[in-house]
Amino acid sequence: MAGNAVAAGAVTGEALAGYLRAQATDFLRALRLHRETGGGGAAGGAEDSVDAARALRRTARRISAGLHTFRPLLDADWSERIRPELAWVSGTLALEHACGARLERLLLALHRLSGAAAAPVPARVGVPTQAGPAAPAASSTPGRGNLTVGAAKAGALLDRQLTLARTRAHSTALQALGSSRFHAVADQVAVLASEVPLTPAAATTDLRPLAAAAQERLTDAVAALPLVTAGSPYNAEALVHGLSPDPAPHPQDTPWHQVRLLLRLHRYACEVLDGGPGTPADVRLLAAARALDRHRDAAEAASAAAQAARTPRIAPATAYALGVLHADQRHEVEAARYAFQHSWPKRNP
Amino acid sequence: MAGNAVAAGAVTGEALAGYLRAQATDFLRALRLHRETGGGGAAGGAEDSVDAARALRRTARRISAGLHTFRPLLDADWSERIRPELAWVSGTLALEHACGARLERLLLALHRLSGAAAAPVPARVGVPTQAGPAAPAASSTPGRGNLTVGAAKAGALLDRQLTLARTRAHSTALQALGSSRFHAVADQVAVLASEVPLTPAAATTDLRPLAAAAQERLTDAVAALPLVTAGSPYNAEALVHGLSPDPAPHPQDTPWHQVRLLLRLHRYACEVLDGGPGTPADVRLLAAARALDRHRDAAEAASAAAQAARTPRIAPATAYALGVLHADQRHEVEAARYAFQHSWPKRNP
Repeated sequence: MAGNAVAAGAVTGEALAGYLRAQATDFLRALRLHRETGGGGAAGGAEDSVDAARALRRTARRISAGLHTFRPLLDADWSERIRPELAWVSGTLALEHACGARLERLLLALHRLSGAAAAPVPARVGVPTQAGPAAPAASSTPGRGNLTVGAAKAGALLDRQLTLARTRAHSTALQALGSSRFHAVADQVAVLASEVPLTPAAATTDLRPLAAAAQERLTDAVAALPLVTAGSPYNAEALVHGLSPDPAPHPQDTPWHQVRLLLRLHRYACEVLDGGPGTPADVRLLAAARALDRHRDAAEAASAAAQAARTPRIAPATAYALGVLHADQRHEVEAARYAFQHSWPKRNP
Repeated sequence: MAGNAVAAGAVTGEALAGYLRAQATDFLRALRLHRETGGGGAAGGAEDSVDAARALRRTARRISAGLHTFRPLLDADWSERIRPELAWVSGTLALEHACGARLERLLLALHRLSGAAAAPVPARVGVPTQAGPAAPAASSTPGRGNLTVGAAKAGALLDRQLTLARTRAHSTALQALGSSRFHAVADQVAVLASEVPLTPAAATTDLRPLAAAAQERLTDAVAALPLVTAGSPYNAEALVHGLSPDPAPHPQDTPWHQVRLLLRLHRYACEVLDGGPGTPADVRLLAAARALDRHRDAAEAASAAAQAARTPRIAPATAYALGVLHADQRHEVEAARYAFQHSWPKRNP
């Protein structure tokens, strides 16, 4: 994997090619598995299908990130054509998972807020069949008897809305995977699995400055975050605008979401240098990444609760429970920022 | 003030008598001021009247605490007769202030949650006249135009409910101050201002062991608090049961309220030993006391928001805003516990 006739310790385009080939191979394997399991429609194959979809997302993200961070080493035309297509694939497949995870998070929070701590929360690992969700709403929330009427109704409303969104996302994903647009992507990835279109100079180009630039973009973005505020607990920052008439996402969340994406690019660049995915050399990055995932999930769950509260003709008790839930998730947002601030090395990582 | 023929450094019953006489004198002065200002009904006298009511509460609490902590030094019959009466006076007078402070806290939070940070919050230092609140609801919430419909309606609802409660508390307090029951208390305090009914042994009894016992009761109660939980920020403890069908106050709040009362007894016992009110020797006690006041205020504000949400026929948007507000105040409860845990000396104070 080491280059020849280049600076000692250098990691060259060969390492990038090896990484991209491996990811492309994994993508194709996941695609085969997904087709064999019928995309979650066949009995027994639901879990395999979820695993396959996750592997498709994972590999599509990594290939896309490699093309982005190391673009000077790759055929520019090809790279610019395939990158948005890979983003479309991972984005389309992520939506279904996100709806399920959001519902699970919100139902868990409703149980916690009701003091029904012992109530098991439905393991929603399965995907809905094309006809609709596999589990009926009633059986999906054991312990609902411990909730107030408002919390139970809020849970049922969220279950309806997010299950519907998930079912739609599932159909959209299945349609996407059957489309000619996706077949074109799969063909491109199949080519990549055997032959990476490197530039002539790539074999002797050191990857490390490009990886360092990705890290610098991350470091700069982190430096611009309000880490001092986030470092003082209970600063009540994340709930400001919680009742604002502006229904747009919280503008203060955006730089945190941006850091999450830059951290991911940095992690994947490290993987290329380290010869493949695995535990990063700096394990603190994992804690930071987890905190930012939690930040994103809580922010989106808070929006979903606020959105559900705008459903016409709901009972005041339902709206009240959704308000409590919204504020709870916004505090989760704040807690995640606090956790990120603590996980982040005080000097450059 | 030092005893004679007792252990060196001892503080005896004379110090207690001096403290009680001074507090009783202040009580009588406040009572005169309150009568001169007409209990808030007369124009121009409202602020003086508030000050007078505060001084009555302060001194009644301190006399009552002195009788409790140092009861072996005082005539038992007399002491047991007057203590509940003093508690009745301070409790009755506190209610009006609490309603006003609660409304101010909730309106401030609604503005913060709406992102209307610059909006000034009404200074509600005045007391309502007997006819009703002095300020009309509209002028009491400038910047309401920046709120959502729900937040504005929630603010108006809370304003109505808490202003009504405050007006009632004001009438009750005025009635109480004019009652024969209160005149009997005032007569007892007048006697106390000139002659404290000490036991014969009090002149040579050291107060310090009794003050130490009060401190020990505090220390034991603090040790029983879940300080480890409170010391980890964002533990989401205070919101558990936030949606519970049980409308009773949060049972987990009770030990914190109890510590607040024990801390007050400890502080007043220190005042007796130190020769009068003033900055305590251990200033950390002030931070701890402030945190516990904030804990109590936020817990009661959260209850008021939840209570308002049970008003029949309110709009879902109003209920939603009240839910957000409730959760926000419960997080304030949690933040106050965190602040207390940090203010509290790790060893015995």
